Amino acid sequence: MSDLHVYRPEPDELAYTFGGRPPVRRVRPGDVLRVSTEDCFGGKVRGVDDLPTVVCRFPYLNPVSGPFHVEGAEPGDTLALHFASIEPARDWAVSSTFPHFGALTSTSHTATLQPPLEERVWWYELARDLGIARYRARNSDFTVDLPMDPMHGTVGVAPAASEVKMTITPDAHGGNMDTPELRAGVTVYLGVNVDGALFALGDGHARQGHGEVSGVAVEAAMETTVVVELLKAVPTPWPRLESDDFLMSTGSARPLEDAFRISQHDLVTWVAGLTGLDHLDAYQLVSQAGEAPVGNVCDTNYTIVAKILKRYLGRISVYEGVHDRLRRIAAAL
Amino acid sequence: MSDLHVYRPEPDELAYTFGGRPPVRRVRPGDVLRVSTEDCFGGKVRGVDDLPTVVCRFPYLNPVSGPFHVEGAEPGDTLALHFASIEPARDWAVSSTFPHFGALTSTSHTATLQPPLEERVWWYELARDLGIARYRARNSDFTVDLPMDPMHGTVGVAPAASEVKMTITPDAHGGNMDTPELRAGVTVYLGVNVDGALFALGDGHARQGHGEVSGVAVEAAMETTVVVELLKAVPTPWPRLESDDFLMSTGSARPLEDAFRISQHDLVTWVAGLTGLDHLDAYQLVSQAGEAPVGNVCDTNYTIVAKILKRYLGRISVYEGVHDRLRRIAAAL
Amino acid sequence: MSDLHVYRPEPDELAYTFGGRPPVRRVRPGDVLRVSTEDCFGGKVRGVDDLPTVVCRFPYLNPVSGPFHVEGAEPGDTLALHFASIEPARDWAVSSTFPHFGALTSTSHTATLQPPLEERVWWYELARDLGIARYRARNSDFTVDLPMDPMHGTVGVAPAASEVKMTITPDAHGGNMDTPELRAGVTVYLGVNVDGALFALGDGHARQGHGEVSGVAVEAAMETTVVVELLKAVPTPWPRLESDDFLMSTGSARPLEDAFRISQHDLVTWVAGLTGLDHLDAYQLVSQAGEAPVGNVCDTNYTIVAKILKRYLGRISVYEGVHDRLRRIAAAL
Amino acid sequence: MSDLHVYRPEPDELAYTFGGRPPVRRVRPGDVLRVSTEDCFGGKVRGVDDLPTVVCRFPYLNPVSGPFHVEGAEPGDTLALHFASIEPARDWAVSSTFPHFGALTSTSHTATLQPPLEERVWWYELARDLGIARYRARNSDFTVDLPMDPMHGTVGVAPAASEVKMTITPDAHGGNMDTPELRAGVTVYLGVNVDGALFALGDGHARQGHGEVSGVAVEAAMETTVVVELLKAVPTPWPRLESDDFLMSTGSARPLEDAFRISQHDLVTWVAGLTGLDHLDAYQLVSQAGEAPVGNVCDTNYTIVAKILKRYLGRISVYEGVHDRLRRIAAAL
Repeated sequence: MSDLHVYRPEPDELAYTFGGRPPVRRVRPGDVLRVSTEDCFGGKVRGVDDLPTVVCRFPYLNPVSGPFHVEGAEPGDTLALHFASIEPARDWAVSSTFPHFGALTSTSHTATLQPPLEERVWWYELARDLGIARYRARNSDFTVDLPMDPMHGTVGVAPAASEVKMTITPDAHGGNMDTPELRAGVTVYLGVNVDGALFALGDGHARQGHGEVSGVAVEAAMETTVVVELLKAVPTPWPRLESDDFLMSTGSARPLEDAFRISQHDLVTWVAGLTGLDHLDAYQLVSQAGEAPVGNVCDTNYTIVAKILKRYLGRISVYEGVHDRLRRIAAAL
Repeated sequence: MSDLHVYRPEPDELAYTFGGRPPVRRVRPGDVLRVSTEDCFGGKVRGVDDLPTVVCRFPYLNPVSGPFHVEGAEPGDTLALHFASIEPARDWAVSSTFPHFGALTSTSHTATLQPPLEERVWWYELARDLGIARYRARNSDFTVDLPMDPMHGTVGVAPAASEVKMTITPDAHGGNMDTPELRAGVTVYLGVNVDGALFALGDGHARQGHGEVSGVAVEAAMETTVVVELLKAVPTPWPRLESDDFLMSTGSARPLEDAFRISQHDLVTWVAGLTGLDHLDAYQLVSQAGEAPVGNVCDTNYTIVAKILKRYLGRISVYEGVHDRLRRIAAAL
Repeated sequence: MSDLHVYRPEPDELAYTFGGRPPVRRVRPGDVLRVSTEDCFGGKVRGVDDLPTVVCRFPYLNPVSGPFHVEGAEPGDTLALHFASIEPARDWAVSSTFPHFGALTSTSHTATLQPPLEERVWWYELARDLGIARYRARNSDFTVDLPMDPMHGTVGVAPAASEVKMTITPDAHGGNMDTPELRAGVTVYLGVNVDGALFALGDGHARQGHGEVSGVAVEAAMETTVVVELLKAVPTPWPRLESDDFLMSTGSARPLEDAFRISQHDLVTWVAGLTGLDHLDAYQLVSQAGEAPVGNVCDTNYTIVAKILKRYLGRISVYEGVHDRLRRIAAAL
Repeated sequence: MSDLHVYRPEPDELAYTFGGRPPVRRVRPGDVLRVSTEDCFGGKVRGVDDLPTVVCRFPYLNPVSGPFHVEGAEPGDTLALHFASIEPARDWAVSSTFPHFGALTSTSHTATLQPPLEERVWWYELARDLGIARYRARNSDFTVDLPMDPMHGTVGVAPAASEVKMTITPDAHGGNMDTPELRAGVTVYLGVNVDGALFALGDGHARQGHGEVSGVAVEAAMETTVVVELLKAVPTPWPRLESDDFLMSTGSARPLEDAFRISQHDLVTWVAGLTGLDHLDAYQLVSQAGEAPVGNVCDTNYTIVAKILKRYLGRISVYEGVHDRLRRIAAAL
């Protein structure tokens, strides 16, 4: 017997950290959650003249909806969140440059004596029925229609070791991984660190490129439906994703090769566990068959994904078959 | 009036550097080259008991065929190499671990006090008619058929500044980029640094995963057909690729985020030049529409590719339309 | 009128985070604090057979004493902590390797498939009257007397943006910087992020090498005397240190070059502000006259220091002369 | 019976690579070499209005004098170069910023869309009798006298594997390490890769800070005296230095932590070999007793040094006592 929860946060209910906050709702394994999320600017950039540094105030960026307490979740369990649907809530989205943020600029950490790039906002019309986001240049007449591919940049649980992290930071607890792989139809697995797991999500993108190069995607408020499940006494060291076709491991760290190493190490050991291959045989298989889509190369940690087709792994049972089960629940909604 | 050149090197003709060697052949722009390449072990690993550290000797690894002198090529020009076909020369390929080499091991540079991983060889049967490479585990009965996707890990020209580089090193001159994007149907653009360009190629892979995680792909000798063209007085700062659908820039550096920055910077400025967008508008477009497949995360420099669909860029003329022209020549072979 | 506070925490009073905890004491600017700190193992490694992974439990590592609330401290102020004395509390100290931790091993983030190095403990006798720590090899008779140079690896305030960080993490709030520059006679400047500042300290080292290469120094419980001062409405972006002779900026990040950039950027802009040099002239001066001792290359962020002799900067007033003032107070204790 | 060689290159004799050039002189082990070196700009920056990008032309930067062929040197030997004296040849030196080069700017590899910093030249008067280099700000009246500490940024041999490298690149063959530790009184050990070793040196600095932050030190032409020695069948994996008090290993790589790992790994294994300590005991000793002065954080590879006091190592014989022997020869010159 599962419940349907609907959660639409008021502006002052938005969260800016993972950890450190009481839950906004309690849900049970098997429940369905319909949740509204604001864009990374909290909806305050309403036109190309609304510069983020003027209308937003640090650290009130990248809000998430939540956290949600999952009944029975304890450290050592795995939370499974199946994204049944992710739909833009408005017929527009925005992007921008942000001073000293992004991959092609010096930053607070890759610190140089150069002034920042110009702060500029881009406005995207979303033709949601057609699945199109229209890019419009600011300094010329150039426009192009890009296919929408809605996703959440941020999903995570409360961190381990009593830490509290800004939502902008991706790490072993999830957070702002900014991978386009986190789209509808995907199940996310997160290791539980605290009682109740305390998951939250936000930072919807109507679409983004690999690496979120400029630091800001096609940012959109979302209406999202998630099916919640819990795997007792099953640990998950780093966030993993499963689609109908792929297994995916994530790594978030700096430098980017360490994020790569984390994700590949997790996928190799996961594949070894699923198939009975020893570590070197699994290393070989992943090396020849794997893909590695970049998540973000702009946040406080960089994120990269290691993925492999499930059909290359023979008959395997992944997390007790929970993805297929949740997929069916989602289909019936 | 173009010529067809056929080049099958003897073992002692193989090259192990870019630069520092006289040309093996002279070709003219418009000529077609049929070239045989050996695998990264020079064909010396003939079974799972042939450990690379026993049968090969540093620095005689990763041989290339060439260099080829292109008539009329001068510094400041761009060499266009269209890969008409890349076909495994034998019905087998090999892979291995190699001590202190690869992404999931300490290395000579990421130096630790740990002993190396076990050196192990994997043997792949290639069913060339079916386009299949069969993975066979060493320590279990597990096998799986992987689709072949033949490519060259290594292609490049003589470096600038009188440098001579081991073929294993990818950099601005090309080299061992190890990107699966370098498959048949693709045109590679390389900036010319010395008279005659002096290009060479090798390191065929029947397939590889993103990142060439273990350091060694499904290594195969190849029979490859290349159409050669020259663009006078057109500079190319880093190797670029063009397929029917995509423009691609490469970056090779450490740490991996610098390779990412180089490739994205090149793609952004290239797109700006093609479309008339200013740099920030191009940065925005690439950020939302681009992809970033990882090449290698194991060589002396890491390689990553920035790519974008040509159809997102409006009506553009890329390198004077040479890709389409070479495509047609290749189709007529 | 200043107070002398003495604080000797019970084991269950030790803290393992910066932020997220109520203060253990309230002090006023000008007060003197005598504080006992435990070693990074909480004093539980009592001999070479006490392996840290057996006697300690994650995340209960690297305890700090505190936090201390400083009356009147508000975000935007700078907390000045003058270390009047740092003295080993016992006549022994310990060090160890720790699995998958340290610079010359793969780690959880520089993840490889290799097994960890052997876990081994070293016991140091401290001849405190002579200022000597005796190194004793475990697998031979080799011994050598090293000069003691007592310091604190960890000092910091509650982080900004409501974050809570494990004490092992160095960042803009301070934390586990592990620089031998933090010895007696030095004033540490920390930007205040929350009311009361909430500073804490711990992780005493009888001495350490640059980089804390193995991940563990000569770990010692300490008796430490700190003089507390507050500079109102004076911001400090990253932790800074001042000795009688040097100004020092710290940076903590990965990769190590970003820690270097942060520290050098801070020192260049600090020097510019103190001397009236423009940024480029200050960049030039720091480039020729500066030093850059490495702190740690093993923690979750790496730390490096940028330092310059004050006498190279002409007549300057640093933080309103607070270092000299606190130095005199310390001398009178 | 040793010879004294004097070498003063004409401008067109200067070399810009290691490898790829015939020797300018032949010397024998035991010989003394008096060599003149030009500054990194080839002496072409003669005043603050001579911008390097105007008066110099890539790749004709950072010239070295040499290469010198050492009779009898073969791969697997070690070349010992004792720097008897390093003295500025002129009463001035220069420094500058250089577009997109240096630690506090984006570069060709840490590529951003920001414009470069202003190119600016600084002029240093050298009071050689007093050992003083006078810094003079460009945009204010500020001046300060800095102690001279003459050194060579660049020394190396022909690389292995038939490679030819620009002199700007530091690596296992030496090259532009830019460490202030390479001063008079120091012996440099370089592994020999080709017959004759083919060593060269240049890039004198009247002084530099750690990291050569701006990318350019106090650049000076030098008159240098080197005593040459050869150790047969003694390999040296990375450049090492020995002073009267210290053993030093270098590492050159990116990211900076890999340079750190290389240098520490080399020092740990070197110390183990000298003392009979096992690797873990040597790791522990170096971790507590070592120093790690940064060389450069601006070149194509970054360089860092690992050093330890010889007196901490008991009775050891380093490279057959060659440093002491060469020291005596130098004293008698």
